[in-house]
Amino acid sequence: MKQYKYFLQEKDMPTHWYNVTADMKNPPPPYLHPATLNIMTPEDLAPVFPSACIEQEASREQFIEIPEEVQEIYRLWRPSPLFRAHRWEKALDTPAKIYYKWEGVSAAGSHKPNTAVAQAYYGKQDGLEGFATETGAGQWGSALSLAGQMFGLKIKVFMVAISYQQKPYRRIMMETWGGEVVASPSTQTHAGRAILEQDPDSPGSLGIAIGEALEYAMTHDGYKYALGSVVNFVLIHQTIIGLEARKQMEMAGDYPDIVIGCAGGGSNAAGLIYPFMKDKLTGDKPNLRALFVESTACPSMTRGRYAYDWGDTAKTGPVTMMHTVGHGFIPAPVHAGGLRYHGMAPTVSALLDQGFAEARAYHQIEALEAAHSFAASEGTIVAPETAHAVKATYDEAMACKESGEAKVILFNASGHGHFDLAAYDAYHRHALLDYRLEEAKLQEALKTLPKIS
Amino acid sequence: MKQYKYFLQEKDMPTHWYNVTADMKNPPPPYLHPATLNIMTPEDLAPVFPSACIEQEASREQFIEIPEEVQEIYRLWRPSPLFRAHRWEKALDTPAKIYYKWEGVSAAGSHKPNTAVAQAYYGKQDGLEGFATETGAGQWGSALSLAGQMFGLKIKVFMVAISYQQKPYRRIMMETWGGEVVASPSTQTHAGRAILEQDPDSPGSLGIAIGEALEYAMTHDGYKYALGSVVNFVLIHQTIIGLEARKQMEMAGDYPDIVIGCAGGGSNAAGLIYPFMKDKLTGDKPNLRALFVESTACPSMTRGRYAYDWGDTAKTGPVTMMHTVGHGFIPAPVHAGGLRYHGMAPTVSALLDQGFAEARAYHQIEALEAAHSFAASEGTIVAPETAHAVKATYDEAMACKESGEAKVILFNASGHGHFDLAAYDAYHRHALLDYRLEEAKLQEALKTLPKIS
Repeated sequence: MKQYKYFLQEKDMPTHWYNVTADMKNPPPPYLHPATLNIMTPEDLAPVFPSACIEQEASREQFIEIPEEVQEIYRLWRPSPLFRAHRWEKALDTPAKIYYKWEGVSAAGSHKPNTAVAQAYYGKQDGLEGFATETGAGQWGSALSLAGQMFGLKIKVFMVAISYQQKPYRRIMMETWGGEVVASPSTQTHAGRAILEQDPDSPGSLGIAIGEALEYAMTHDGYKYALGSVVNFVLIHQTIIGLEARKQMEMAGDYPDIVIGCAGGGSNAAGLIYPFMKDKLTGDKPNLRALFVESTACPSMTRGRYAYDWGDTAKTGPVTMMHTVGHGFIPAPVHAGGLRYHGMAPTVSALLDQGFAEARAYHQIEALEAAHSFAASEGTIVAPETAHAVKATYDEAMACKESGEAKVILFNASGHGHFDLAAYDAYHRHALLDYRLEEAKLQEALKTLPKIS
Repeated sequence: MKQYKYFLQEKDMPTHWYNVTADMKNPPPPYLHPATLNIMTPEDLAPVFPSACIEQEASREQFIEIPEEVQEIYRLWRPSPLFRAHRWEKALDTPAKIYYKWEGVSAAGSHKPNTAVAQAYYGKQDGLEGFATETGAGQWGSALSLAGQMFGLKIKVFMVAISYQQKPYRRIMMETWGGEVVASPSTQTHAGRAILEQDPDSPGSLGIAIGEALEYAMTHDGYKYALGSVVNFVLIHQTIIGLEARKQMEMAGDYPDIVIGCAGGGSNAAGLIYPFMKDKLTGDKPNLRALFVESTACPSMTRGRYAYDWGDTAKTGPVTMMHTVGHGFIPAPVHAGGLRYHGMAPTVSALLDQGFAEARAYHQIEALEAAHSFAASEGTIVAPETAHAVKATYDEAMACKESGEAKVILFNASGHGHFDLAAYDAYHRHALLDYRLEEAKLQEALKTLPKIS
């Protein structure tokens, strides 16, 4: 009898997160202060993030204990199931064995609550009243609102105005969990008012929303700022995905040859990949392939520069060494809103630079085509971001068909597409555009990088 | 350590469905022919449903084997998890132990695929090319499109025009699984054209859509009609829910005092309840309470008559003995579209009539209020239909708080509310109406019942 799913019981849920920097011979270089460009100290970050998160950011500990209160909330949906895609394998007629970890089972519908819950807990420990944050399409705002609800914290979400108007369901979801959502630019911050004075009908942008959220957090007692990707403490929290998957792959009697995740800031991909990357870094599995998949509309890993850059357009966050297309870059409006960040997580960038990881870019038409094929076989309709990982898996499976190799492929199904069906509709109607960044625009954007000697 | 979820492994998934009529001393009386009102024969149903379904409808076998091909598809999401609502219990400060079976994990988002997959398989066995069906809000159409995709059958869905316009996401979901969706009334059937001639802007209704689907199935070679609730073969397929839940309650070391489900046609409630009802019918658990929960907008069980009535407004389907408010009744536009059917499943009706089951009605404001409280504690945002079961659970838990009894309550969380967030938005904005059927309207509707001596 074919087995389709591998369930881990709650008592077997990992109790520690994994920190990849412990096993890196050359961890990423330090953050620089956004104004002075001098090396940034933990004290510099103190007004922004919960203290435990700042400690984790600087930590070189290999394993970090998950607080019992965080484990309790995780158990509302974790351990998440690992699937074997038997029907898709058959449809593709591939000898490859395809597994996927399904993070769409969280109430918010993606992997994002894995870190939102941790940040909310640590914020509560710091005695915070609440968090401010930004959200684009709404995945991160939903996750943080859920987490805030669980720990009795107020969550203020600055949602990019155009998404606020076009995606009311995500807003309602946040409000259902007690989040307070305002369209950004808003009249509630200096930064927002300045934009609105110039353009009262501004559609907003993630850069503007980040600026508003940071300003709100800095100017309101008891508030800090919550971030959904890129920094290492977020990636650490996400490793619960891969740590569970390791145990589930053992249940299945397999070990992956290739581990795949879609990467905007890098957190879901790293969350799945790092606990396997450990075996590669320590030499146990030198041939393991780790594949980070991005959008051709925002190709930081495949066409960007590995350099120091600001993390946000307002230049208020740390300057980090990363693969970037330049913080001044404004990507095309692809449906995969989570793949529109100009930079990549510093640890992912370092591992790419050091040859431990691979990167690949796809445009959204081919990504949705693969996701459609996946839905036809497996039922599950994944988010447009996840569709990029599905496409990479498809290509690897087809390569196996060509070569006759029965490779074991594992990808992260990071979220469901229930609020992104407009992308599938556009695909069905042949109305999707295959956004690929033009070279001239890339060169223009790269000029916004800081000059650092 | 508190356990939140009980996972059953695939190898422990039940291999047989349960048929409650085997244990009823007085099963429901036979169907009558819609035109002659004489007793209906299986032959009369042959043009409408797959042959195996017609056999099951007449069967008095206690257990019916689930075909291996159906089990295979079930395994894409089944066994579904059973949850203990620890956080909600704490929030309500109740000594009650609250469990819920979570059917929102299917790709279509509800329990509906449990029967859609079976009907599609049996249709394939009959050599069908496809099925025609109707859908209101889209749950059933989604489930059947998914099932059709899995067995290579064409699915033609007549979707109530107003929903087609207002709920594009459900349409896209059906199309993603290969379903062909048309707004009803359509120009593709005689019935649809007749309506459009009178009213080119008709918003449609479930009654009209059923008429179109039946006509399409009857007039197209290789097509039959698929039904999502009410008839006993559908309820039989849904018992996989309760059969799994029995095993999971054993894992939890509990047996329910009260089993609860929301009921429009009755299929999800019966699916959970019947495998426990078995113990009540055979005398093992005489005190078990079985609670079917409906909407005050369409109170067939609590205020309707137990009488023979047509199942559809066009009077083309069987005439069945059931609790009904009259087939001519048009309910108020509550958000719980699945609770707007005028009748109740014949077996549920008979069990109510014989005192084995209880019924209760709630209006949508109190239902959404309970669902909001549930989402705040558990995270999960349930469908507006499910919200009615949540409200009944809430009231039973509060009664336990009053009496100090630690009763075990189990309810069916039949589906997620991702496509119904407008209901939550209306609730937040205090814009929901507490539709309760007026007595005069009920009496008017009851006049449409057939005169049977």
